[in-house]
Amino acid sequence: MDISLFLLFLLACSAAGATGAMFPPGEWYKTLEKPWFTPPDWAFPLAWTTIYLLISFAGARVAVLNDNAYAMAFWAVQAGFSTLWTPIFFGLRRIRGALLVMLPLWLSVLGATLSHFWLDFWAGAAFVPYLAWVTVAAALNLGMWRLNPKVEPLRVDKL
Amino acid sequence: MDISLFLLFLLACSAAGATGAMFPPGEWYKTLEKPWFTPPDWAFPLAWTTIYLLISFAGARVAVLNDNAYAMAFWAVQAGFSTLWTPIFFGLRRIRGALLVMLPLWLSVLGATLSHFWLDFWAGAAFVPYLAWVTVAAALNLGMWRLNPKVEPLRVDKL
Repeated sequence: MDISLFLLFLLACSAAGATGAMFPPGEWYKTLEKPWFTPPDWAFPLAWTTIYLLISFAGARVAVLNDNAYAMAFWAVQAGFSTLWTPIFFGLRRIRGALLVMLPLWLSVLGATLSHFWLDFWAGAAFVPYLAWVTVAAALNLGMWRLNPKVEPLRVDKL
Repeated sequence: MDISLFLLFLLACSAAGATGAMFPPGEWYKTLEKPWFTPPDWAFPLAWTTIYLLISFAGARVAVLNDNAYAMAFWAVQAGFSTLWTPIFFGLRRIRGALLVMLPLWLSVLGATLSHFWLDFWAGAAFVPYLAWVTVAAALNLGMWRLNPKVEPLRVDKL
């Protein structure tokens, strides 16, 4: 694996990671009704850090292979949407809007997992925890939307 | 050019594009002192739409080529940081924080421009307007930071 490529993909992940640090849950999140399978708060940064390391490894392995077009395109799509989710949920408190972001995010992670597997077994395997986690995250988002029908979005542009 | 790849890269751009729609400037932005070279409001969505179409074209051309590792890695890095900038600036009103995001964004666009040129002339050329625009955007961000030293960040987690 080319370490410079690994670090570049990790840099891409750090944009999504920064949203977790910049938009912390705060009091509002505590007041939400949560599904019974909600993980404890400490599990989130741990899961995401592991995922970022694994998919940066996967990206670096696949980037040097021929015929990597779809794998690299799906990698880029998940980079965008994983950065978008947190500001929509914790910044704007748009639970339904965040759920809509989950759709392209989940599909791009599925596409990345399959296209990485097609090129390289270990790269595909490195995407599996991400696919599992984003499935749980989508279920959590759906559960919070159903359990908190009266949450008002935060209109930051009106403040 | 493979139209499915073009649409996948355009989908990645739509994550960044969504931040512009979800975090509109609002009254706060109007109150900011702006540098003399600030473009009119209508220029921003026009410039970004043009850029998204051009870099999706570039991504689709380069994704099918061999030895595209760095081009694809830089493409993914800009996808993350271009999605991060707007929520930091308009969501959190962190003018200095947004300026820090500009650094990896500008470098990744420079890296993408050079690495795309190295593989394909038209793909590299398609990144040039983005490099020019992000240079202007970084200068605007720097100017707004210097002209508005007393702006308070919005602590959305405390609301």
